[in-house]
Amino acid sequence: MKRRQVVAGIGAAALAGAACTRNEGGGEGAAPAQKTFKWKMVTTWPPDFPGLGTGATEVARIIERCSGGRISIKVYGGGELVPAFETFDAVSSGTAEMGHSGAYYWKGKLEASSFFATVPFGMNAQEMNGWLYHGGGWELWKEAYAPFNIMPFPAGNTGVQMGGWFNREIHGVADLKGLKMRIPGLGGEVFRRAGGTPVALAGSEVFTSLQTGVVDAAEWVGPYNDLAFSLHKAAKYYYYPGWHEPGATLECLVNKQAFEALPADLQAIVQTACSSVNDRMLAEFTARSAQALDELVNVHKVKVRAFPDDVLAELRRLTAVVMSETAADDPLFRRVHDSYMEFLARVRGWTRISEQAYLQAR
Amino acid sequence: MKRRQVVAGIGAAALAGAACTRNEGGGEGAAPAQKTFKWKMVTTWPPDFPGLGTGATEVARIIERCSGGRISIKVYGGGELVPAFETFDAVSSGTAEMGHSGAYYWKGKLEASSFFATVPFGMNAQEMNGWLYHGGGWELWKEAYAPFNIMPFPAGNTGVQMGGWFNREIHGVADLKGLKMRIPGLGGEVFRRAGGTPVALAGSEVFTSLQTGVVDAAEWVGPYNDLAFSLHKAAKYYYYPGWHEPGATLECLVNKQAFEALPADLQAIVQTACSSVNDRMLAEFTARSAQALDELVNVHKVKVRAFPDDVLAELRRLTAVVMSETAADDPLFRRVHDSYMEFLARVRGWTRISEQAYLQAR
Repeated sequence: MKRRQVVAGIGAAALAGAACTRNEGGGEGAAPAQKTFKWKMVTTWPPDFPGLGTGATEVARIIERCSGGRISIKVYGGGELVPAFETFDAVSSGTAEMGHSGAYYWKGKLEASSFFATVPFGMNAQEMNGWLYHGGGWELWKEAYAPFNIMPFPAGNTGVQMGGWFNREIHGVADLKGLKMRIPGLGGEVFRRAGGTPVALAGSEVFTSLQTGVVDAAEWVGPYNDLAFSLHKAAKYYYYPGWHEPGATLECLVNKQAFEALPADLQAIVQTACSSVNDRMLAEFTARSAQALDELVNVHKVKVRAFPDDVLAELRRLTAVVMSETAADDPLFRRVHDSYMEFLARVRGWTRISEQAYLQAR
Repeated sequence: MKRRQVVAGIGAAALAGAACTRNEGGGEGAAPAQKTFKWKMVTTWPPDFPGLGTGATEVARIIERCSGGRISIKVYGGGELVPAFETFDAVSSGTAEMGHSGAYYWKGKLEASSFFATVPFGMNAQEMNGWLYHGGGWELWKEAYAPFNIMPFPAGNTGVQMGGWFNREIHGVADLKGLKMRIPGLGGEVFRRAGGTPVALAGSEVFTSLQTGVVDAAEWVGPYNDLAFSLHKAAKYYYYPGWHEPGATLECLVNKQAFEALPADLQAIVQTACSSVNDRMLAEFTARSAQALDELVNVHKVKVRAFPDDVLAELRRLTAVVMSETAADDPLFRRVHDSYMEFLARVRGWTRISEQAYLQAR
């Protein structure tokens, strides 16, 4: 069901510095009006949540500015128009023309979707963009979403997410046994195989659950968002680097009929706005997380630790087990998995002597 | 001198799916035509050179598509309209409305410009974008170019560039003495202080100069572009990771009057197209360099080596010396240097426990 609204273009076209009049009969001196489009964007984020929600709003604003107002987009936080996790269905049905979210949220209906966001021990942001734009990843993503009537666009990245907050130090695999941790998705499944108990909690519940001891550990995003939630105040916690979400791509979802109803220039604007936010959101996370980490460590005296090598090795081994079990049951998951892993195998050699070697040399 | 041409908008507007007619007197049923703009873009790259030249062309094509043809841009390779290194002056004077290049090429007239491209032991691509978009870098860049009548936009990144091709292994600082190397800019000056002889060579001369022994070593970009130049065939060479160009930002230059003559929607389109290419070019370099490195190592049996720690330490020390000497003589260089270094000091702590820790853990 498509709810795109087409209205006469005078107001919007005036914003573009060009007022056109409707040409009903092709009379001399008249021309067809430029159509305008009023869209809704639903999101999985709290309204204007730092980085994620503000990134979604930025996509909308860029489209409005570039189109001179020919497209206007009202952005809804999770729960404002539809519940956060009905974002995908709302765009699929046309209740909203557009959505902003992370593909791994749709793992329940489409197991392969995790690869279009991030997977444990997978690619970082720079590698993900390489795979999506130049390694066949985006084509697979479009194919995976096509049966749902949705066109996906990369539209943001958090960079490497932190491994989370723990109420004890992790000295070995045995320390994970029985640990209750807020950790969703594939990472949560790997954590379960390692002996822990993954707990499903919305972001808004993380602080209280940590503080009251409902969970022993929790991951959210990274310093920028974790500081916004004051997770360092929830308890005296240890902060660990990440392994399970090494470069989470965010997505814009566009209803197929809504997109196809746009003229070519507005289609190009939608696509370019998403790519622009894909560029700018990672920059925002990088700058703001640097500030926030500085504050967490130097003002709030948070203790940063590292997982021992044997813990990482076990999590890596279990990730491969989970992947291969899922691939055996799901042909689309297998195809996307194989494309992703083939690209990763090649790009990691380049990352090793470029980004990684440089960071060590610096 | 501004050479923007304004022509009647019928053809271009038709491309946008909207034909408007010129309104000379405000008569009923008529409306002002949308102006169209014919721009020239000059570049410092060989025409359609992989990654760099094609990235410049992509900026132009995105602007054309998003504007429905209201802006059309003819792209010139270096030497086609003006010599490559007159790109900056051509945009400044209005001979071309737009340019695509790297800011460090303008070091001769504006020492601080190196920081807006890349400097030895400086930030990688992700950190650069953090500084430019959210750390005050772009504001300083605009200020630095304002006296030249130019507005700069980040529009691409190569990622970490390689340290180059050497005809001998480098076992210590002594091995750099007397070495003739194609290495430009600040990196070249640091190399000179380390006892080497930097040689200025255009990209097109690198292959022959390596092959004939005019130079003992040469850096160009990285596997993607180095393979395109067949540098591995120039001699039996050792290939070293980089230290001097860790995340080279490319720039779009826009003539100030040309930009200000655009309506607001077209200004937004120009800015968004640059940001989109800033996103996509790094992805292209990442994917293509991964492929090219694989071919160089596995097919052409290129030997990848690493600089010893004492060599890196000496190059790092000399970089600080060169920076501080330049800062003493040049107040603008000092201001940009201080902003850059303050951001780097903070962001490297975050990079260490995010990107770097993750790459080691993976």
